[in-house]
Amino acid sequence: MAERLVVIGGDAAGMSAASQARRRRNADDLEIVAFERGRHTSYSACGIPYWVGGATSGPDALIARTADEHRARGIDVRLGTEVTAVDPAAGRVLARDAEGHEAWTSYDHLVLATGAVPVRPPIPGIGAPGVYGVQTLDDGEAVLRGLDRGGVRRAVVVGGGYIGVEMAEAMLLHGLDVTLVDRDDEPMSTLDPDMGRLVRKALEGLGVKVASGAAVREVLLGGDGRVRAVSTDDATYPADLVVLGLGVRPGTELAAAAGLPTGAYGGLLTDRSMRVRGTERIWAGGDCVEVWNLVSGTLQHIPLGTHANKHGRIIGTNIGGGYATFPGVVGTAVSKVCDVEIARTGLKESQARAAGLQYVSAVIESTSRAGYYPDAAAMTVKVLAERGTGRLLGLQIVGREGAAKRVDIGAVALTAGLTVDRMVDLDLGYAPPFSPVWDPVLIAARKAAEAVAKDLAREQAP
Amino acid sequence: MAERLVVIGGDAAGMSAASQARRRRNADDLEIVAFERGRHTSYSACGIPYWVGGATSGPDALIARTADEHRARGIDVRLGTEVTAVDPAAGRVLARDAEGHEAWTSYDHLVLATGAVPVRPPIPGIGAPGVYGVQTLDDGEAVLRGLDRGGVRRAVVVGGGYIGVEMAEAMLLHGLDVTLVDRDDEPMSTLDPDMGRLVRKALEGLGVKVASGAAVREVLLGGDGRVRAVSTDDATYPADLVVLGLGVRPGTELAAAAGLPTGAYGGLLTDRSMRVRGTERIWAGGDCVEVWNLVSGTLQHIPLGTHANKHGRIIGTNIGGGYATFPGVVGTAVSKVCDVEIARTGLKESQARAAGLQYVSAVIESTSRAGYYPDAAAMTVKVLAERGTGRLLGLQIVGREGAAKRVDIGAVALTAGLTVDRMVDLDLGYAPPFSPVWDPVLIAARKAAEAVAKDLAREQAP
Repeated sequence: MAERLVVIGGDAAGMSAASQARRRRNADDLEIVAFERGRHTSYSACGIPYWVGGATSGPDALIARTADEHRARGIDVRLGTEVTAVDPAAGRVLARDAEGHEAWTSYDHLVLATGAVPVRPPIPGIGAPGVYGVQTLDDGEAVLRGLDRGGVRRAVVVGGGYIGVEMAEAMLLHGLDVTLVDRDDEPMSTLDPDMGRLVRKALEGLGVKVASGAAVREVLLGGDGRVRAVSTDDATYPADLVVLGLGVRPGTELAAAAGLPTGAYGGLLTDRSMRVRGTERIWAGGDCVEVWNLVSGTLQHIPLGTHANKHGRIIGTNIGGGYATFPGVVGTAVSKVCDVEIARTGLKESQARAAGLQYVSAVIESTSRAGYYPDAAAMTVKVLAERGTGRLLGLQIVGREGAAKRVDIGAVALTAGLTVDRMVDLDLGYAPPFSPVWDPVLIAARKAAEAVAKDLAREQAP
Repeated sequence: MAERLVVIGGDAAGMSAASQARRRRNADDLEIVAFERGRHTSYSACGIPYWVGGATSGPDALIARTADEHRARGIDVRLGTEVTAVDPAAGRVLARDAEGHEAWTSYDHLVLATGAVPVRPPIPGIGAPGVYGVQTLDDGEAVLRGLDRGGVRRAVVVGGGYIGVEMAEAMLLHGLDVTLVDRDDEPMSTLDPDMGRLVRKALEGLGVKVASGAAVREVLLGGDGRVRAVSTDDATYPADLVVLGLGVRPGTELAAAAGLPTGAYGGLLTDRSMRVRGTERIWAGGDCVEVWNLVSGTLQHIPLGTHANKHGRIIGTNIGGGYATFPGVVGTAVSKVCDVEIARTGLKESQARAAGLQYVSAVIESTSRAGYYPDAAAMTVKVLAERGTGRLLGLQIVGREGAAKRVDIGAVALTAGLTVDRMVDLDLGYAPPFSPVWDPVLIAARKAAEAVAKDLAREQAP
């Protein structure tokens, strides 16, 4: 008799797991049922800001594989169906379909891919018409409808992280006056403040008003019950439309209710094979799990489609009878706002300190191409290196075209545990249209290596 | 009494060495004399095609630091002065200045940075007016004067390597009919032929006529003694202007005459500290040396400004009393022709075979950005991995914007000795404007990892 795989959550992690398992085991051997409470499978939430901004069409273009395409591959996708309970002891889940019918489905393997839920501070007015999240394709459609209402002139984006700056760009592209309200001192708090300051300046250069160090206290409504303004402790920002980009937390209520283990960030805890700790046949991946950071040696919650896809593939390989593990992350992220590119990998200063790591740092300015080549764009690169050993700990880049993906050099170097000294002689691609003769990352590594040496000398001094 | 450092060759390697030594030792301690037979110091030969093509100005913009700027930093630069003999036993060099005066200069440290000389096949007409090299700034000026003569409609570029394709672009930008004549079956023979074929197609798409497998036999001259056509065994290509991009060989006549050791490619042989083997106080770097390839475990001649700069810095550090070594290269190179980007690192198939390495390969097509994002450009990625171990051996990329610098991922992975299996889970930067959710390099690594596994299974099969 065939085994049954039940997947909860029809986006990247869940459907990658289902697809990979199906590739390895046919329908006679493995039945696959995937429950998705929304209307879509395998969509790119990361693409929503670009759809809203008009760079790309949507929502269909953002769907990598529809439910029907999955069905054609032998995966029984149940849209509009929410799993309301997991019973690990009996090996079954309770699902309620769109008509409200509830039924138990037993499983031999269960994949929890329940994603993340947006953070919504409990402040007055946050649920009012004109306040939008950016999590699902439905959210994207709602923002676009809001923009189409007419009379929308001023947008307030709450939150200065990736989604916040990307949505600020989208609002600029609609010609709106944009204010970014952010509780941190500088936007992009995944960077160190000195690098975040560059992002703020770039945002301001693009015409975005940046209100830093400002936690939102209330969404003020007009007589029509719609958004009128956003207030902080210090100020009130008029708004015809509010976008919330306050980050997400793991969506693990279901799993926690079933007694499955979660960590400090509320994410499910898995072993290296992405099996939920302490279980035999429950797997989890994507935005609902915590991942191992190879640099800090700690668990983190890093919701990113690229990790979700990898997790899904690993889970599907293992359920399919193969063997795969997830080694962990180094914390790479890239983003852009208009032509400003932002990237980071590894640890920022506060993260290094929190991990008990001491470091030296170096910040350099260089250009994306040879200085004499057209469109050579300024780029600031920051490197953190461990005291004494000189091991690379982190890399941050703010620049323009050609800046962000250079962070991959750091991502590989972190994975391999390279020292900044060793990085100085990396044989990176050089030609005038692509790089100065010393790539900016090499210059930063060189300066960091000098800082490591100076620090050592200081330590040895009598 | 101060020591004296004599540098032969005033470009990247020589002047980097001089500058770095000066930074570490002041003029009371170290006198520095640099002989340069040409008119310029520290210029970017790699920039010449872009100057000729009009993308950048020249020649001043291509000069990173003039002779006077070096002099202001305490380096005695002697332009127009050619060193005609080195006497290692006596520790002195014989130099002839522009007026023809010859004199011996003694040294305590000698840096040989004599660069490379262009390959010029001994065929009729190769020295005729209208035939140009692309080696020095004077060459660049000569081509531009040639283009300015008027009546120049058809250019033949001889050689399909980096300089050849870059000069083909430059000639296209001048509105010329361009024919690329190349003796190899496909252009860019630093790539495998299947990847070179993509370059040929791209060149043809840009309007370049590519004559492959065609060695030049003669440059045919008109009644005025100027270039009229280029002939191969099979055909004759009309030409008003001919550009030679046939590569270079190490410029080591002087060193060889002095009894210094050279290798299979004619380049000087150095130890890890860039000291010439068997000598105490002679150093060499840049295009005149052979470098260790970390992947093949063999010496190679790779003339590239980025290596020359690194060599110079290492030599200057060592002469300056510090300690630095050059670990070797992995063979990274990037280039472009119009919007077509070309990159390679590590070994191509024939290089792997020559090194005694057996491999499997994978070729994939993907895009530079998420498929739905504007300007997502097609990209072909090829990976070679060692049989059995799965160690990355090489990476080749042909695509458009965003393709070439992805090769750096491979360059770092090769340096660190990563397996393709380990590369699959690299935490590379992902956001829709920068990458599909699986970066093209990861997809290629994944496919190569599968090929390694299949190969192992085949080997184990009874």
